[in-house]
Amino acid sequence: MSEKQEEIVEDSVVDSTEETEQAVSVDSVEEVVEVDELTLVKQQLEEEQDKAIRSRADFENYKRRVQKDKEADYKYRAQPLLLDILPVLDNFERALAVNATTEEATSLVKGVEMVYRTLLDAVTKEGLEVIEAEGVAFDPNFHQAVMQEKDDSKEPGIVLQELQKGYKLKDRILRPSMVKVNE
Amino acid sequence: MSEKQEEIVEDSVVDSTEETEQAVSVDSVEEVVEVDELTLVKQQLEEEQDKAIRSRADFENYKRRVQKDKEADYKYRAQPLLLDILPVLDNFERALAVNATTEEATSLVKGVEMVYRTLLDAVTKEGLEVIEAEGVAFDPNFHQAVMQEKDDSKEPGIVLQELQKGYKLKDRILRPSMVKVNE
Repeated sequence: MSEKQEEIVEDSVVDSTEETEQAVSVDSVEEVVEVDELTLVKQQLEEEQDKAIRSRADFENYKRRVQKDKEADYKYRAQPLLLDILPVLDNFERALAVNATTEEATSLVKGVEMVYRTLLDAVTKEGLEVIEAEGVAFDPNFHQAVMQEKDDSKEPGIVLQELQKGYKLKDRILRPSMVKVNE
Repeated sequence: MSEKQEEIVEDSVVDSTEETEQAVSVDSVEEVVEVDELTLVKQQLEEEQDKAIRSRADFENYKRRVQKDKEADYKYRAQPLLLDILPVLDNFERALAVNATTEEATSLVKGVEMVYRTLLDAVTKEGLEVIEAEGVAFDPNFHQAVMQEKDDSKEPGIVLQELQKGYKLKDRILRPSMVKVNE
């Protein structure tokens, strides 16, 4: 309440009933203003509280999403390097496919096999797995058919031969197997 | 204002100045209560607003930290696999150190060199680097001294020989070089 309005109230009490009536009237207008400010502030408070609830929820959602992203990042962290290592594994297989005839070559091949095994251990530890192919039913999610053949001794739709190994990282296909399928 | 109090105000206006005085007095007590609630709600509003500012700041800090963590995770994502590949690189070097005499062995070594190069390309792409050793000043942050020798033709404290390659992933040492140092 302003100073001026307080003066009016005091005057009214001292002077007359009529004046007092006026004073009460002023006072009740003043009260409406007070109530209005209170309502307004209460509204603001409520809005602020609603906002707080929403932003707490946003924060929690964000944290959950971050955690999920982090887990996925962690799970597949080796993917870029593994993708570049797949040709290394292919080359190893090709190098080891030779038939060594001399003792020197045989010993070399043995050495290379050991190196290959160390690399296989390392990539397996990170979650790399060879996709099953030969003898299983062709599945376009895992296999890429590059040839077909008719072998009556085997069921149709069976993978007859694996032409290039396929790999997955945990539940994610990095490269499908290239296969020959029975018609 | 309650109904009962309003009645008192009306009565006072109609009845007498004395009664009116009393009414105004009641009214002003009522006003003090109103103002108190307003002050209280305003205080609550202010607290709520402060809290909102603080939690916005917390959220921003959290986001920044998450971003920083994410960048570090991304930067060093290949570290676990690379650590397991270091022995593979060592074995490659050992396998390639042989002196092939037969044509068969020579061709095999060439094949293995190609495989090694493919692997080196893959790990280099992910940020793996060989630590400089031979001919540079010994630095305990990068080198592990396993032998000492006295070579007067070279400066003291110089790395004379690298016994095992050391590697770093970007700015992080994965394994120091094992070296022979000049006394």
